[in-house]
Amino acid sequence: MIGLKETEKRLKEFEPIFYPRSIAVAGASADPRKMGSQWVNGLLAAGFSGEIYPVNPLGGEISGLKIYPNLRTIPKPVDLVIVCIPRQFVLSLLDDCAVAGVKAVHFFTAGFRETGEPEWIRVEEEIVEKAHKGGFRIIGPNCIGIYSPEQRIPYGPSPLSGAAGTIGFISQSGGHAGKILEIGLGRGIHFSKVVSMGNGSDLDSVDFLEYLTVDPRTAIIGAYLEGARDARRLFQAIKAVSPTKPIVVWKGGRTEAGAEAATSHTGALTASAAVWSAALKQAGAIEVQGLEELADTLLLFQQLGPLKGNNVGIVCGLTDGGGGESVLAADACATSGLNVPPFTEKTKAQLTALLGQVGSVLRNPLDISQSYGNTQVVGQAMELVVREPHLDLLVVYENVDILLRFLPAEITEAMNNIFIGFHRRQDKPIVVVLPRGSMERERLEIEGKFSREGIPVYPTMERAARAIAHVSRYSHLHKSLSVC
Amino acid sequence: MIGLKETEKRLKEFEPIFYPRSIAVAGASADPRKMGSQWVNGLLAAGFSGEIYPVNPLGGEISGLKIYPNLRTIPKPVDLVIVCIPRQFVLSLLDDCAVAGVKAVHFFTAGFRETGEPEWIRVEEEIVEKAHKGGFRIIGPNCIGIYSPEQRIPYGPSPLSGAAGTIGFISQSGGHAGKILEIGLGRGIHFSKVVSMGNGSDLDSVDFLEYLTVDPRTAIIGAYLEGARDARRLFQAIKAVSPTKPIVVWKGGRTEAGAEAATSHTGALTASAAVWSAALKQAGAIEVQGLEELADTLLLFQQLGPLKGNNVGIVCGLTDGGGGESVLAADACATSGLNVPPFTEKTKAQLTALLGQVGSVLRNPLDISQSYGNTQVVGQAMELVVREPHLDLLVVYENVDILLRFLPAEITEAMNNIFIGFHRRQDKPIVVVLPRGSMERERLEIEGKFSREGIPVYPTMERAARAIAHVSRYSHLHKSLSVC
Repeated sequence: MIGLKETEKRLKEFEPIFYPRSIAVAGASADPRKMGSQWVNGLLAAGFSGEIYPVNPLGGEISGLKIYPNLRTIPKPVDLVIVCIPRQFVLSLLDDCAVAGVKAVHFFTAGFRETGEPEWIRVEEEIVEKAHKGGFRIIGPNCIGIYSPEQRIPYGPSPLSGAAGTIGFISQSGGHAGKILEIGLGRGIHFSKVVSMGNGSDLDSVDFLEYLTVDPRTAIIGAYLEGARDARRLFQAIKAVSPTKPIVVWKGGRTEAGAEAATSHTGALTASAAVWSAALKQAGAIEVQGLEELADTLLLFQQLGPLKGNNVGIVCGLTDGGGGESVLAADACATSGLNVPPFTEKTKAQLTALLGQVGSVLRNPLDISQSYGNTQVVGQAMELVVREPHLDLLVVYENVDILLRFLPAEITEAMNNIFIGFHRRQDKPIVVVLPRGSMERERLEIEGKFSREGIPVYPTMERAARAIAHVSRYSHLHKSLSVC
Repeated sequence: MIGLKETEKRLKEFEPIFYPRSIAVAGASADPRKMGSQWVNGLLAAGFSGEIYPVNPLGGEISGLKIYPNLRTIPKPVDLVIVCIPRQFVLSLLDDCAVAGVKAVHFFTAGFRETGEPEWIRVEEEIVEKAHKGGFRIIGPNCIGIYSPEQRIPYGPSPLSGAAGTIGFISQSGGHAGKILEIGLGRGIHFSKVVSMGNGSDLDSVDFLEYLTVDPRTAIIGAYLEGARDARRLFQAIKAVSPTKPIVVWKGGRTEAGAEAATSHTGALTASAAVWSAALKQAGAIEVQGLEELADTLLLFQQLGPLKGNNVGIVCGLTDGGGGESVLAADACATSGLNVPPFTEKTKAQLTALLGQVGSVLRNPLDISQSYGNTQVVGQAMELVVREPHLDLLVVYENVDILLRFLPAEITEAMNNIFIGFHRRQDKPIVVVLPRGSMERERLEIEGKFSREGIPVYPTMERAARAIAHVSRYSHLHKSLSVC
């Protein structure tokens, strides 16, 4: 645990980065197609509340804003500078930054260390030296930088912005950071802050991690990392934060082919996947493989928080075909290390009385085919399963297309309202699986409805099970940590 | 290899099942909500070309068709009977089937062996005895039965029907068979025949497999199996067919929890997962885990057929963020055992001349970020990659939402047309990955466009890689088999 003073110092240091009162964009121009212009228009479209100062020696105007010839001529203080000018001009720009007293400089401009060319590696070093001397921090170079929805800073040169949430995300890939935001818009995953730090020449992943550790708006941390400049410090930071904020890490470049691609990408020197996995585990992080597993796990943490255990009750066969679904669901859960414990004898007897025996599987996973469109029976069966004291959460497996093909749409809606009702009662966390099929429009509508209620939705049982396993393992570890 | 005579005998035997000239539905009535009535209306809606005879002792009419009081009163021959009457009446119905000279009887009716009750297990045995004596075959009981799009027989009591294709599918779960059809409608997977055989009291999975082996309309075979009554015969049948038709098997009940669910479902006695895996491998089948992997693999076989090898060329970063994408793609491919070999020096030099160095990863996976919206450059880069002689197929990783957010829609369309152009030239098989994000409607439209052209589309790189690995392993094995 760090002290209050240190916490305040960190928050203060990153304030001009995530909550700047003013942003200058070097490289904006009257031509809206220019990258700098797109940054300015993105900030305007996202509704950035502070001052925006376009900068370009050619002057002119963009979207009603005056373009300043240089940073020195801006009449008011500048907190953050976004750099979109050719790389050969960046060093002199930094001299202006020092004069203007800016607090942080983000380089969208690329072409430095990652080229492997000595000349440009040297320039990157000079950038950092100038920053140290000038009293400001560097984000990048070669990165998309900051996303701060609370401050209405969109992601990159675009208006991409969503609702503010509780997940802080750190990425060594601007593409993955952008994509996780896009996935979040689709699936209801909301971020407090996102940063893609590119080469991380000055502020590196560990600096941002230390900030998110103390940031009161961040409750969950996600990270895409290809390597670490100072692995010891990184794993110390992960260890420090993991007991209080879950940290989900996707390590890129786990395979030889992936590591080679990573070397070309961020120049990261990648240790072996096994070493990373062991270190992440020891530091209390949750390691995931790939973009979707990362999003799946963050979504579950966001929507449900810690889980009491990994005993899963499963309800399937909402129309028919629940026999095969129950096998699929049990296999998927068991493969991820979840328990699918039997129902108590009393509940089994009550389910048999309710659903009858023929053609249904009255065990966990529960096949409620025999309710065939009787929503009252669905509600009663759910009630019996929810009341099972040894189950920690419920998964509902809903084949939207089969439901809609065989039953009137009102019945599907009524069933979904029943599940939402149980979720609202908060007796037990509920996860819904809506597998892809032939009616994507309807399926996405139902996903949106569940999402807005705070119910996490997954496209396959396997992905739901993996996310549940990650969260329950973290919850278990965290419980033991708290006991210590 | 079986002889011509045996082949003809098998085809002849299953003709009344998959190509019946007439179908009687026992249990149809004037009430359209009755299950039997839904079967009749489903057949009519799907455009079944043969005669339909509703049967019910109460008589009456359904959808303009006369309801016969029993099978004996139907004036013309009946090939197939679909049974939707309560289980206590089925034995006397079978006596009528014998008198009427029907060829096959499908029992939608359930409640026999799967109940575990001695009385009903005995009735199932009697059903088979009556069939043997009466000279007809049994499908089921407790199953959805037959789907035969060529003959316009829909799946189950519904109008669910798609275009006829080349995949034959056998399932011990009616739910999974229905779901794979729904997935097929969404993703362009087309079936020659599908059968869910329930308890398989007479015709079992292996009988249908032997039929699909000789069926000239079936080129690829898929199966969902929970167990086998005669495992030796099943694996012999798989071994016999696998050199000429790829057979993709999903074994349900691989885990203890899944096996328990399977026991309740089909009463299948499940051998251990390891034993099944070893036997499937030895028989030359492709084993998959789960519904999505099954669909993914069938799709690749259908669209691309055998692959020359597992050397993959990857193109990503269509807008930006290709650095992270290239790491993701390489990791996913390598994890599935695919090769991502380097480009030749000549091609690397040409790519550098075309795309420039800064910010792009000019290796395999190829990050074409630097083309930023220049479709001509995209086309030229694709041409260079396609021409690499050591690559067996190409994967294009396209983030639809990022493309559409940063570039005009016409550019995305032009890029997609370029990929389609390469596919049409058939120089090299092309697979497209369209990861889920924030613009699902647009993404599905693009998926449909690729699909209709015969390009297989996947929602994640991991799933594409797994399917490619399965198909290339099969192709490799098949090649060595042909050599023997």
